Amino acid sequence: MIDHETLQDAVANRRAEALTFDGLEYARLLEPVNHYPRGSVVLPDGSIIPGYPAIGRIQSLEAGLPRQFDQPFWAEEKIDGFNVRILRWHGRIYAFSRGGYVCAFSTDRVTDFMDPVIFDAEPDLILCAEIAGPDTPYLEGSTPRVAHDVGLFVFDLMRLGQPGFVPQPEKFSLIEHHALPPAPLHGQFTPHDTQALGQLIRRLDEEGAEGLVLKTVDGQHRAKYVTGSSCISDIRVCSEQLLDLPPEYFTNRLTRLAIFLSEHPSRHHTDLEQILGDALLSGLYGAVGQHRRQGHVGHRYRCRFRERANALHFMNHMRATGGRHVAFADDAPRQEDGYWLLEFDRQFDRITGTLASALAGERQYD
Amino acid sequence: MIDHETLQDAVANRRAEALTFDGLEYARLLEPVNHYPRGSVVLPDGSIIPGYPAIGRIQSLEAGLPRQFDQPFWAEEKIDGFNVRILRWHGRIYAFSRGGYVCAFSTDRVTDFMDPVIFDAEPDLILCAEIAGPDTPYLEGSTPRVAHDVGLFVFDLMRLGQPGFVPQPEKFSLIEHHALPPAPLHGQFTPHDTQALGQLIRRLDEEGAEGLVLKTVDGQHRAKYVTGSSCISDIRVCSEQLLDLPPEYFTNRLTRLAIFLSEHPSRHHTDLEQILGDALLSGLYGAVGQHRRQGHVGHRYRCRFRERANALHFMNHMRATGGRHVAFADDAPRQEDGYWLLEFDRQFDRITGTLASALAGERQYD
Repeated sequence: MIDHETLQDAVANRRAEALTFDGLEYARLLEPVNHYPRGSVVLPDGSIIPGYPAIGRIQSLEAGLPRQFDQPFWAEEKIDGFNVRILRWHGRIYAFSRGGYVCAFSTDRVTDFMDPVIFDAEPDLILCAEIAGPDTPYLEGSTPRVAHDVGLFVFDLMRLGQPGFVPQPEKFSLIEHHALPPAPLHGQFTPHDTQALGQLIRRLDEEGAEGLVLKTVDGQHRAKYVTGSSCISDIRVCSEQLLDLPPEYFTNRLTRLAIFLSEHPSRHHTDLEQILGDALLSGLYGAVGQHRRQGHVGHRYRCRFRERANALHFMNHMRATGGRHVAFADDAPRQEDGYWLLEFDRQFDRITGTLASALAGERQYD
Repeated sequence: MIDHETLQDAVANRRAEALTFDGLEYARLLEPVNHYPRGSVVLPDGSIIPGYPAIGRIQSLEAGLPRQFDQPFWAEEKIDGFNVRILRWHGRIYAFSRGGYVCAFSTDRVTDFMDPVIFDAEPDLILCAEIAGPDTPYLEGSTPRVAHDVGLFVFDLMRLGQPGFVPQPEKFSLIEHHALPPAPLHGQFTPHDTQALGQLIRRLDEEGAEGLVLKTVDGQHRAKYVTGSSCISDIRVCSEQLLDLPPEYFTNRLTRLAIFLSEHPSRHHTDLEQILGDALLSGLYGAVGQHRRQGHVGHRYRCRFRERANALHFMNHMRATGGRHVAFADDAPRQEDGYWLLEFDRQFDRITGTLASALAGERQYD
């Protein structure tokens, strides 16, 4: 709980932001308040959806498993999408983004993939899930686990106002009982199962999957480990934004890839260098080509909504947070196959500016 | 000229640094003083070796030539090395680095490549030159123009205390008359010679050369233009330092490469992506391997001196500026083929630290 006065103070000190979504008045934490981490959400009665904590990354199975675990753990697949927390509040389903905003897109779509009747039996449950696929409004890439539109993958359960996660056995049982769509489960391992986990991660690497999240049985102790191919596909989908993302986005993934290949040399296939070079250059060629054609560099996103009102909520949110960088079509959203389809472009300013100057023949000092 | 009092003030305000090299008391400018740029050198009588100015880069020949030039210009080859200014002062030859230090290595070696008798005829002359080759103490890469050891390439002349450069005709005549080793000269062009310059740069790209510096006849107006292959070779020689260099080192070169290839599509040969991917990964594999073997990542440099005393000056300078990152062999410098050979390792801290943590199985939050 965070009481009204504490929240008012936090808002005044810019540790929290007061927001409204379609009549729901809530706040998101920008900094920790009462030990709740940033990204936590304060509901109208002061109850809290805890922020989803960052999961530490290991880059070596051989060294990392014995160092990070002293008990068995589950290996769950990490899906490359965006993280939402889903709950029912006063009869309505809401999905909150990692930062603590109501996500109008996810709020609109999650009931396509899960039956909200679960909240009759478990009214204080919070589903932590990944939304992934080719048609999201936030991501340039997709996952091999979703062929079209989007999918939902539940990987954790929390309870309103309670710290920590629901333990794994209870989580599996609730997921099964209520037919929730789970993140793929790859079995239980011990810290000595380096070989078996190595085989598993090499198979996931071959399939283009992102990687694994390892979780102890009580659900509290975690580590993630990603595939080399996910590093390359991250680079591929973002190379058109090379100058707009923090450059560490690229250097971290290159370093991770080199460590992954040094631990799994059999995954260093003959055309890997070619694939990496292409991942970097294809987006940049595309950016130069876009700039020559249309004078700027951007990316086209598409996603679809069940309710027109949610599409409009989403557009307002993007206009408020993305400003002039986001451009919607004049007729957006338009009806298609029973949904409201929204397409929009996001412009990348720094690469647009650098290419503008370079292609105009200006002199640059670096 | 900078008078004694002005210099004392500048030193007190950290706009200049007072230094000594083997009895020569001089100062280098850390910030502009009396309109002399940073990197300028103040000699004991107050006369000034002007700092070598940065040359603006164009990334498009087609747009850049007409935009930057309204008169004919010379195309001189840009050599991938380090920039020195050479002069004689009270009977001794000194070579100063871009930052304004006496470079003990260059000071020792330049007379291997030029006859100092030129300073009898032209006592106020300053030679601006590139030192390049596999055996320099500063660079990880080399140039195809020098097969072994180092070479000297004179590309500009200045006169002590005078702003600007000696005009091109006088420069060419002095270079020829005194048999100075010039940077390769590729002819004179007009701003409309996009095609001829395109052919030239594509040939240089194929040869692995760095690029061109274009200079008007009066020597004052300049622009540089580099090849795509030089971007790749820069990435290759520095990928083992991926986390220690500013990440823009890599992102700028990738962007430049994409623009180069879009303007010279015939240079986009079929194995270019493979070569780029290998340029990035081979250094990183090497770094991981080095870390597994020896617990840190570094680079081995080698260079040779005529005089043992200069090698010792150089070692003192490196110890003072490079600190614990630089390690010389116990027997350094040692005699070899009539020279004093110096070998040393420089450690890269950030990639060493990141790999230490990753290979020890620690959890990382990014």
